[in-house]
Amino acid sequence: MMAKITIIYDSITGNTKRMAEEVYKGANHVGELDIVLKHVDEASGLDLLSEGLIIGSPTHCGVISWKLKKFFDENTRVAWGKVGGYIATAFSSSGGLGGGNEVTLLSILSILMNYGYLVFGLPDYAAPGVTGHYGAVSVRNPDEKELKQCYLLGVRIAEYVKRFHS
Amino acid sequence: MMAKITIIYDSITGNTKRMAEEVYKGANHVGELDIVLKHVDEASGLDLLSEGLIIGSPTHCGVISWKLKKFFDENTRVAWGKVGGYIATAFSSSGGLGGGNEVTLLSILSILMNYGYLVFGLPDYAAPGVTGHYGAVSVRNPDEKELKQCYLLGVRIAEYVKRFHS
Amino acid sequence: MMAKITIIYDSITGNTKRMAEEVYKGANHVGELDIVLKHVDEASGLDLLSEGLIIGSPTHCGVISWKLKKFFDENTRVAWGKVGGYIATAFSSSGGLGGGNEVTLLSILSILMNYGYLVFGLPDYAAPGVTGHYGAVSVRNPDEKELKQCYLLGVRIAEYVKRFHS
Amino acid sequence: MMAKITIIYDSITGNTKRMAEEVYKGANHVGELDIVLKHVDEASGLDLLSEGLIIGSPTHCGVISWKLKKFFDENTRVAWGKVGGYIATAFSSSGGLGGGNEVTLLSILSILMNYGYLVFGLPDYAAPGVTGHYGAVSVRNPDEKELKQCYLLGVRIAEYVKRFHS
Repeated sequence: MMAKITIIYDSITGNTKRMAEEVYKGANHVGELDIVLKHVDEASGLDLLSEGLIIGSPTHCGVISWKLKKFFDENTRVAWGKVGGYIATAFSSSGGLGGGNEVTLLSILSILMNYGYLVFGLPDYAAPGVTGHYGAVSVRNPDEKELKQCYLLGVRIAEYVKRFHS
Repeated sequence: MMAKITIIYDSITGNTKRMAEEVYKGANHVGELDIVLKHVDEASGLDLLSEGLIIGSPTHCGVISWKLKKFFDENTRVAWGKVGGYIATAFSSSGGLGGGNEVTLLSILSILMNYGYLVFGLPDYAAPGVTGHYGAVSVRNPDEKELKQCYLLGVRIAEYVKRFHS
Repeated sequence: MMAKITIIYDSITGNTKRMAEEVYKGANHVGELDIVLKHVDEASGLDLLSEGLIIGSPTHCGVISWKLKKFFDENTRVAWGKVGGYIATAFSSSGGLGGGNEVTLLSILSILMNYGYLVFGLPDYAAPGVTGHYGAVSVRNPDEKELKQCYLLGVRIAEYVKRFHS
Repeated sequence: MMAKITIIYDSITGNTKRMAEEVYKGANHVGELDIVLKHVDEASGLDLLSEGLIIGSPTHCGVISWKLKKFFDENTRVAWGKVGGYIATAFSSSGGLGGGNEVTLLSILSILMNYGYLVFGLPDYAAPGVTGHYGAVSVRNPDEKELKQCYLLGVRIAEYVKRFHS
């Protein structure tokens, strides 16, 4: 059975959804992995038991959206402590530079580490002036450079999952 | 009209509620201030327009509880940007040392700063081996030293509100 | 004697220095305050005893520069616990979007809260697509919008210091 | 050649050193790995190129010690971006509960993620009332339960390194 990567996102304006689609493309690029994309309303706790997990949230006050937080609060029994060594990362879209997209990523990474995932960011630049050291970020409607960053995040997690869990 | 301090908390096991009660006592100690204590289920957006605001959350994955996050996400129009110069801080109860009570405080402080509050922690020790540099914390059933810390946090915000907003 | 605001920064490429100059202009705009701008190499612990304090650091790994950290580690006796109610904030310049400028601000705010300052960010937008919820940030050579944000941060702290400490 | 785990720490009072020794014991427990323990004054950039890396810092203002920050700031060329998929975590000792040991861990994890490591914490309890969701923490002189947590952190990273890099 192929290893699985699940992308779960929340989105209000569509910007985080747009990022999610590009992360999905990047994860599919690597091949021989089962890649699933879900809005949080459609996700179940079992989705957390994927070898790779990517969580995307809009930036609201520098903290993961309440819907996603509710999802994790209600699924601790399903997945907490059962995902040791699985790989995870995050992405977030904010209304402005300095508006909390990085801080939102920290809140997501905190949740993921609590569950037991190994988490990572991108040390490299996806495009000039755009990196993603805590996962992928964008400001408003994601531009081409920010979408490259999302794509790279998807590629990277797929490479890790293939390397460690195939 | 007296300046007002509102304490809003969420609690599952009762530990954060116990902390809230002690913060309430500390805030009342200073005098000539209107101190209000509310569970998040009873709070309204207008409560955010208090000269002093203290938010208490259980520690779940190092992030404010989803109920409190929902409360802030839904009340941005009521209070965002209207509380400049108002004073705020936080408290949290965790199941274990190293279990995320400080990290949960950071998520609360992030929300409070986004709204426009001035936020603070305690530089001093409330008791030997117990301080509260990001607000008050406790591990499980709060002990006497942790309750002193909660009380001190209440005193401190009341002093600030009296000094700056009376 | 006029209340004092001190801006202390570190800078490698000149980008954080450029931000510092603009914060300085903003702080001067308000008037009747003593505004001082210093590189960390020229600063002393006594500078921390200012009614307003703004710390600027380049973004290196999402954490305040080692020179600034050394400065704070060595001056705890001078100022720790003596600045209760004083106002502080931060700014940082990174090499890329998503490169840690917000996370660097969190590390600075942590230090400032530990010392006892009240810390704040900007709830408002300085320009379209540019805010500063944890202090001011810029990516590489700060552009006009990012400099407006720095200026606004300077204005805001000056307003707070004048309101609370004059 | 055996995979290598390097523990690098800074310590003023000896408490973080005591933690480091216990992490070292835990890492050695797993076997068939090369485990190295170094004070930051003795460490070189090449030590960062280990399949497992654990960084320990005293808690000063909720941020990694300036010596360790200087070490990382000066070794970006040696290791940045060359450690993708390597595993890392952290530990910290504070003077008080609520005094910033978790927040210090976040600053270390930020640096490690920037370099490219996969980082993790402990989802499980090392002892009643003691976990380590962001790495290991202790308050003052580490007690038996906190030392168990350090040991468990060492065991866990050794298990990950053996599983993924042998």
